[in-house]
Order: sequence, then structure tokens, then C-alpha cells
Amino acid sequence: MKKIKLTVAYDGTNYCGWQIQPNGITIEEVLNRKLSKLTGEDITVIGASRTDSGVHALGNVAVFDTETSIPPDRISYALNQQLPEDIVIVKSEEVPQDWHPRYCNSIKTYEYRIQNSKVPDPTRRLTHYFVSFDLDVEAMKQAAEYLVGEHDYASFCNVRTNVEDTIRTIYSLDIMKQRDEITIRIQGNGFLYNMVRIIAGTLVRVGRGFYTPEQVKEILEAKNRQAAGVTAPPQGLFLMGIEYR
Amino acid sequence: MKKIKLTVAYDGTNYCGWQIQPNGITIEEVLNRKLSKLTGEDITVIGASRTDSGVHALGNVAVFDTETSIPPDRISYALNQQLPEDIVIVKSEEVPQDWHPRYCNSIKTYEYRIQNSKVPDPTRRLTHYFVSFDLDVEAMKQAAEYLVGEHDYASFCNVRTNVEDTIRTIYSLDIMKQRDEITIRIQGNGFLYNMVRIIAGTLVRVGRGFYTPEQVKEILEAKNRQAAGVTAPPQGLFLMGIEYR
Repeated sequence: MKKIKLTVAYDGTNYCGWQIQPNGITIEEVLNRKLSKLTGEDITVIGASRTDSGVHALGNVAVFDTETSIPPDRISYALNQQLPEDIVIVKSEEVPQDWHPRYCNSIKTYEYRIQNSKVPDPTRRLTHYFVSFDLDVEAMKQAAEYLVGEHDYASFCNVRTNVEDTIRTIYSLDIMKQRDEITIRIQGNGFLYNMVRIIAGTLVRVGRGFYTPEQVKEILEAKNRQAAGVTAPPQGLFLMGIEYR
Repeated sequence: MKKIKLTVAYDGTNYCGWQIQPNGITIEEVLNRKLSKLTGEDITVIGASRTDSGVHALGNVAVFDTETSIPPDRISYALNQQLPEDIVIVKSEEVPQDWHPRYCNSIKTYEYRIQNSKVPDPTRRLTHYFVSFDLDVEAMKQAAEYLVGEHDYASFCNVRTNVEDTIRTIYSLDIMKQRDEITIRIQGNGFLYNMVRIIAGTLVRVGRGFYTPEQVKEILEAKNRQAAGVTAPPQGLFLMGIEYR
């Protein structure tokens, strides 16, 4: 029995997110089906990040156990032949039996992409959050500094369960502007449910002048979801990669 | 009677190109239908560039005549309410009665976008040409220089009719690389059928080492479509804008 790690990229537009659910097709379901077909076994993958509907990934991670004779590094090629165009296996490799994508120490990198101009670009509508109001990127950068470090991010979490520990560490939070494109890049050791999208929604409010940068410090300290801005829409979010230490 | 000029952006993925045809829905058809509904008149637009299926535009141009009382600069807002998300009117304005988008002197700007890396990015599959072979961008830039100026571009034209004059002027042809993204940016006074895509396909062949940059001069001088490279796929092509003088 071998344990195989897959690095998976996908366009989330046409999927109901990662996790199997009754209402529509998911990334996990497609991977299970195609891997089971490829190996002749009954394969169930375990994913590192259960991205929401419409969210994209360039480097999500999944593992599964298999007896297949296909060499680990060739599984990606064989699987890509079977997969639809909007899911691509970037890499496949063998990992130790006790390796788990969610229990290992890891650094996750997310990007949130905004198109900031007067008129929406239809070719970016599925990969960007369109904001027509002029955003003050310098103010957003100042606000972002308050969010870096080890904090209780309860204000930036849409509650699914109450039992969760809401302390996480953000290692870096950079905001870059190039022409009409603003990219929020966040690295951390883990993220709460919708955390990146709520941070993005809150920073957009700072960029519009609804909040001062200093107010973001207060929002963080409130430890209350009501204090923060709206959850920014899913299509701007990209899980860029997960680095395991 | 007023003549209105529209600047139109669209994601070409779900359309059979600009021009009305029996086999599927087109941009022209959607504009005619929505404008007729908006004005209560029987509107027929005339487009500047009849882009192919899958090709995108950020600034194509169309004109139409109307008696509507909607102020010219407000037509864009009213029309955008009606249009699907993948077509956006960037601007609407009144132009003189004798103005015609194809007979006026103009500078057209196209971009052709390539994703050059080992593994395709599924979130760019509908807006980029994926090339897995390492491209030599410096060689592509050298080759591009031979194509700038006034030339007979018969080698870079897929023939639809034989009667066409194949002399055009390319004002600039720039190639930029940023991470794994190569952008070919071309400005000219007009382009033959598939000309930008054949130039892109030929430059990719230079980048792969199939042609030397100097051979592109020979290809141009051959005035023969057979001499040039393949037509690069439609999804990498963007009509960026048309400037009228």
C-alpha cells in the first residue's frame, strides 16, 4: 500500500466546492471517480483545504492510498488524461504512510484578486471581485499590518461550529497593485472558515474609506464577526499553494 | 436620427464570434436583440472587427442609428442592465452621421496571451494559449522586428476571399514576459483574417527553435501562407481597443 500526495489545480467556477455534497458536482467527487477508474480500486481522497463553491486553487493538496503499479510520479500524467479541462494534477508523489495533509505543519498561501476600475472586464468576471469605487491601496496596506502575527481571528470567521479555536498566525499579508488589478496575498499557518474572504471584504471597506486602517485593529480586538466587513465573493479567491515543513 | 458608437468588451468563450451566423449565438445578435428591446426600434449594429469564436475583446466598436430619447452616454448603462455578464458596454457616445467603424483610419491593438510552463493553469485555459515547451523570448523579440512596418502579409493570412489587398502596416509588435505569462502586443492599421493568430503561432515556433528569427523575414517575403507557422488557438487573442484618428 502506498500513500500518494496530489497537488491539484482547478477552476472552481463549475463546481460546488471541494467537499462531496448532494446538491452538485465537487472536485473531491471527480477525483475519487477518476482515480477509482484509473486504479480499479475504490479510492477516497483526503483534501487539505475544502474550498467553497466558485473558489479556485493552483495548489490544493489531496492524498489517497493505493496498490496501483503506476509509478507515483506518473499518476499525475495518467490522471490528467481522464480529468476535465478545469481540473489539473500539477504533481503526484509518494509520501510516508503517516502523512496527513491537514495534521502536518503547513504554510498556506492564498491570493484574493480584485479588478478595480469603472467598468467590469467580462474576461475576468470569474476570477476577480469587481469593485468600481476607487480603492486607496495605501490605506489597505496600513490596515493589513494590524492583521499580521498570531491573533484570535474570531472577527474574521463565519461560524460553522462554535467549538473551534480561532487563534491563527498570519505570516505575511501583502497588497500589490498593477494597472487595475489589486492582489491581496496572505500566508498563514491555517485559516478559519471564510477568513481570507472576510479579510478581503474588510480591506475593501478600508480602501473605500468606510473604515480607517486603525479601525481594523479594533475589529480584530472585538473578536466578533459583526464587527468586520462583508465576506468578499468567492471567485476572487485562489488557494495558491501549501508548503509542508 | 442619431448615430451611436459603442465600445464593447466581451468574453468570447460562449459565442460563435461576432458576426451573425446560423450555427450559434453571436455577439452581434445579442447586441441587436437587446438594443431593439431597449429602444423599441429594429436595431442592426455594424461592428469594427468580426472576431472569431472564442476570441475576446476589451474594446471592439459597433455603431447603430436610433431615434431613442435615451441620452447617448446613458445608453451603455441601460444596455448593461439587459446584457448577459459576459458582454459589457464600456462606453456609448454620439458620432457624426457619416462615421463608419471600418472605413475610418484607425489603429487597432491586439494582445495574444500565452501561458508558458510545464503544467496548464486551469483558471487561464479560456484566456491563454498553453505552451509547455520552454520558449526563447529573446528570439521571439528578434523575429518580431522583421514584421514591423508596411509589408505584404499574405503569408500571415488564412484566405477567405482572394480579392483582398494583403498590404498592411504594423506599428509595433512587443513581446513581454512576466512569470509564466508571455504577452504579444501588436498595433497596426488593420489586420488580415487570422493574421494575429498566425503571427503568434509563428513566433511560438521561433521560441521553440523551429525557426530562427531570420527565417521570419523569409516567411514574410514568401507571401505564401504555407511558409508560416500554424494559427494559434482563438482563446489567447484579445482585441484590446481601436483608436480612430
